Amino acid sequence: MRIIETHRAPNPRRVSIFLAEKGIEVRREERDLMSGELRRDEFSTMNPWQRVPVLVLDDGRTISESVAICRYFEELHPEPALFGKSPFGKAEVEMWNRRLEFGLFNAVASVFRHLHPKMASLEVPQVTAWGEANKDKVNYELQRLDRRLADHAFVAGDQYSIADITALVAVDFMKPARLGKPDGFAQVMRWYATVSARPSAAA
Amino acid sequence: MRIIETHRAPNPRRVSIFLAEKGIEVRREERDLMSGELRRDEFSTMNPWQRVPVLVLDDGRTISESVAICRYFEELHPEPALFGKSPFGKAEVEMWNRRLEFGLFNAVASVFRHLHPKMASLEVPQVTAWGEANKDKVNYELQRLDRRLADHAFVAGDQYSIADITALVAVDFMKPARLGKPDGFAQVMRWYATVSARPSAAA
Repeated sequence: MRIIETHRAPNPRRVSIFLAEKGIEVRREERDLMSGELRRDEFSTMNPWQRVPVLVLDDGRTISESVAICRYFEELHPEPALFGKSPFGKAEVEMWNRRLEFGLFNAVASVFRHLHPKMASLEVPQVTAWGEANKDKVNYELQRLDRRLADHAFVAGDQYSIADITALVAVDFMKPARLGKPDGFAQVMRWYATVSARPSAAA
Repeated sequence: MRIIETHRAPNPRRVSIFLAEKGIEVRREERDLMSGELRRDEFSTMNPWQRVPVLVLDDGRTISESVAICRYFEELHPEPALFGKSPFGKAEVEMWNRRLEFGLFNAVASVFRHLHPKMASLEVPQVTAWGEANKDKVNYELQRLDRRLADHAFVAGDQYSIADITALVAVDFMKPARLGKPDGFAQVMRWYATVSARPSAAA
């Protein structure tokens, strides 16, 4: 089993943190997403969406999409549960992970993709007005996250979950997106200090 | 238990089709998302993201996000499995559902939200260039779906799954987004005829 990734990119990092929390080690194979390698036939056959990470099983079958890869490992190694427990608990984690993903993560990624000069060859066309509009969305999503964290230790409740991983990676993605740190959001910063201090954050 | 929804909107429809496939009936409560109702405090308290559908349990707890609501019902009523079986099967369905959601569904929704005049008060700011850019993305995603369906009966493989629901709702959403029908994609049209003919499609 191996994971094809661009180690420093946000989506592969989500999988790395997830596996570190589970205590699972998987061999990595580095490809540079900025080099155009992912557009070559050899990679496109594995993932027509031309994105990393991709999990390759020993029998050659593949899984792409970070959250799908994480779910595969959750099924194989249920503890610690990072997708929640009980029907309601699982639905709650899914809800929060999606809110963070479609909200904060997507907004930060849109700022990066549409405003950063080095993305010009990957995001075609870059739409400056859309990148700018997403700066407001980042701020709005941080407000909502701050409100949530005012009375919960973690994003989905009392337990650390995949929703915290999505949120942590989104907040760290603010730096390359030239959005700084969410200093004005006290609850986010309190939570960020906690989740960043976990050994998994360095995975 | 009840579901608060705007019945004709795409995301509530995903839940309706899912429940119809499972043979589950849940009471509905209609709110018009176009009227600004979802921005009022009473609704925002339930879902700070101000979107439908929201599932309200009898004890008052709520779940929003269509896929999270569907997963809750999958946990309570595992058969027929619409999120896949076995660790690999579940990961595959998740992968395909996400590819369709972040790809086709999101592209069609972006065309609708950024180009349709009646969305001007809900999508602020509307970014015309972003709406236009998403027309190409719709086309690109349809190509990839067409290639996938050339050798699979359904989106995630041999079995109907939530990925088909996402794709079906995305294709039907092309009409209000003024994108017509994907006539040029023979495999998509063959699959579309099959999934549209299921009784659940009319739910």
